[in-house]
Amino acid sequence: MATKHLFLLPGDGIGPEAMAEVKKLISAMNDKLGSGFATEDGLVGGCAYDAHGAAISDADMDKAMAADAVLFGAVGGPKWDAVPYEVRPEAGLLRLRKDMELFANLRPAICYPALAASSSLKQEVVEGLDILIVRELTGGVYFGEPKQIIDLGNGQKRGIDTQVYDTFEIERISGVAFELARTRKNHVTSMEKRNVMKSGVLWNEVVTQTHKARYSDVKLDHMLADAGGMQLVRWPKQFDVIVTDNLFGDMLSDIAAMLTGSIGMLPSASLGAPDVRTKKRKALYEPVHGSAPDIAGKGIANPIAMIASFAMCLRYSFGMVDEADRVEGAIAAVLDAGLRTKDIFSPGMTEVGTVEMGDAIIARF
Amino acid sequence: MATKHLFLLPGDGIGPEAMAEVKKLISAMNDKLGSGFATEDGLVGGCAYDAHGAAISDADMDKAMAADAVLFGAVGGPKWDAVPYEVRPEAGLLRLRKDMELFANLRPAICYPALAASSSLKQEVVEGLDILIVRELTGGVYFGEPKQIIDLGNGQKRGIDTQVYDTFEIERISGVAFELARTRKNHVTSMEKRNVMKSGVLWNEVVTQTHKARYSDVKLDHMLADAGGMQLVRWPKQFDVIVTDNLFGDMLSDIAAMLTGSIGMLPSASLGAPDVRTKKRKALYEPVHGSAPDIAGKGIANPIAMIASFAMCLRYSFGMVDEADRVEGAIAAVLDAGLRTKDIFSPGMTEVGTVEMGDAIIARF
Ligand SMILES: CC(C)[C@H](C(=O)O)[C@@H](O)C(=O)O
Ligand SMILES: CC(C)[C@H](C(=O)O)[C@@H](O)C(=O)O
Repeated sequence: MATKHLFLLPGDGIGPEAMAEVKKLISAMNDKLGSGFATEDGLVGGCAYDAHGAAISDADMDKAMAADAVLFGAVGGPKWDAVPYEVRPEAGLLRLRKDMELFANLRPAICYPALAASSSLKQEVVEGLDILIVRELTGGVYFGEPKQIIDLGNGQKRGIDTQVYDTFEIERISGVAFELARTRKNHVTSMEKRNVMKSGVLWNEVVTQTHKARYSDVKLDHMLADAGGMQLVRWPKQFDVIVTDNLFGDMLSDIAAMLTGSIGMLPSASLGAPDVRTKKRKALYEPVHGSAPDIAGKGIANPIAMIASFAMCLRYSFGMVDEADRVEGAIAAVLDAGLRTKDIFSPGMTEVGTVEMGDAIIARF
Repeated sequence: MATKHLFLLPGDGIGPEAMAEVKKLISAMNDKLGSGFATEDGLVGGCAYDAHGAAISDADMDKAMAADAVLFGAVGGPKWDAVPYEVRPEAGLLRLRKDMELFANLRPAICYPALAASSSLKQEVVEGLDILIVRELTGGVYFGEPKQIIDLGNGQKRGIDTQVYDTFEIERISGVAFELARTRKNHVTSMEKRNVMKSGVLWNEVVTQTHKARYSDVKLDHMLADAGGMQLVRWPKQFDVIVTDNLFGDMLSDIAAMLTGSIGMLPSASLGAPDVRTKKRKALYEPVHGSAPDIAGKGIANPIAMIASFAMCLRYSFGMVDEADRVEGAIAAVLDAGLRTKDIFSPGMTEVGTVEMGDAIIARF
């Protein structure tokens, strides 16, 4: 069996603590199952800036490009609030997404039965929730040019960002959404603001055409993004797969994550196009939560989102479906057993730290 | 007492039904209190397109510009889904906002005690909620140029929108937010995506400077807009006044409205700058809800958001604070009395139609 190369970018804040638990799981899989993972660590975000003045070094970018998959922790923190825009922690993540052409960001929002009560939403609204947000990740206002601040004189400046989408970008992301819908409840909702944005008009048009040409077996709805946000809060179970652009996807997937009452639990996968020759996709896996600098280093961070991201890696990058199921099953089992990190604690449960939570999941794997 | 000129634009869908209840209230005020309102009706949205091929005519635009205040219902519906972009129903509203320079959109999200249980959020999360979203309304991606679809050939098109903010635009909207915060809990949260948008960097900078120069007595926080959306869902009571740009304001205010469990209840005010000479602000008042074409003409629409928008008009355009309080008190009273339109109905309450609800509010005014 060929060695599976994982490049690990723990990043800042709680990133390294969460990643440490994944490393233990990887070792366990190598030891017990001979899974053949080889890991290497790199720097991204504030720690990379501290080490060499950039949010990710060219050398680490090369390693990310060459790896079978990248596992990413989290970046940022108050320490780097004043660093120049070009080298801010987030720039490392954005460069990874752009240079690896990870255009498809998959963000499942699943409400674990054991946690339904801890959502700020009523239990009946979120219980059993299982939606998948497919977010375009390499286009839109994140990368469009011009993107600049111009000095107009007289104390006036102008800040400019550009939202750009081409037909092929909308086509390929909606293709991913339709394909995934076929493995689920066969229902896609596309969200944009076609009533105020030309890119939204094009988005709507291309999704409609792609549907007609290749996926007419899938149910397709269109919703304005603001109405979509409302409907997510009102009755999220009406959705199966949501496909949307980079910025709306950023907002809507965070809201969807929060509905589940467990943002510390949710993983994501960012995928590129299959290589023409090898059919392999470049891929990066990261938790939906951020670096949480306020609790970093205290041993209380929830490692589940990071571990669940590794489960997505097993599934999507290595086709290790059984192993992925086992990791996800182990997570559900520790929750059923009443173990909780501080962020998801509720009376009557057993509070544990990051390491204990990781150990408990590995023990049940 | 000088005549108070109101220009009424009921629009499409449930707009006219809701506006009819406001007209009754205006007549009652004229008759009983001698309030001296003169009203005139115009067309906006799909009905204006049907009448003269534009989403608002130049003649009606002139009347809106000349009025003391504009009351706006709602626009749009499936009937006009295929009309050209330039004359789609929303274009009428956008032209009103732009030509009247209504840069400050005030959207209170208030949870009426009588309705706390009907939110999809837990009662303790929304009970007593009272936040105010101050949304910039004449800039950003809604109006920035270029805004176009380019044909690239080979079946490829490119959709482009431009997000633009100048210093003065951010300064004046944050000034409005700080002023309003002083009349409330003295706390402003500014939201942007400075980690990916240059306009967000400038936004953050200008809000910070404005605060330092003129409003350092007000508590100011900054939050990334995606995190802000999450926090709105998690624990909305942490906010007092939220100030944000046009697009984020669109998303976030709709989400905030939905939290209250009563989108059919929420009003908004869109204000211009005070005239240098007369000190009067141009103003437009509209419900947060849309045209709801599915229930239009059935007599079941909730007129409360439209009536509450008129209460905001009394308060902000005419300084009729007592009368505004009385309208808002009458709304609370009918809710306490158990009257409910279909959208906010719950078991044990009395279901009423649009007209009965309007009559009941006027009777308690
Ligand atoms: C860290 C930041 C640049 C990023 C984004 O805006 O995409 C984050 O919010 C996310 O959703 O992954
Ligand atoms: C109708 C539409 C153009 C409008 C907007 O996007 O501003 C609406 O959603 C709103 O929030 O007032």
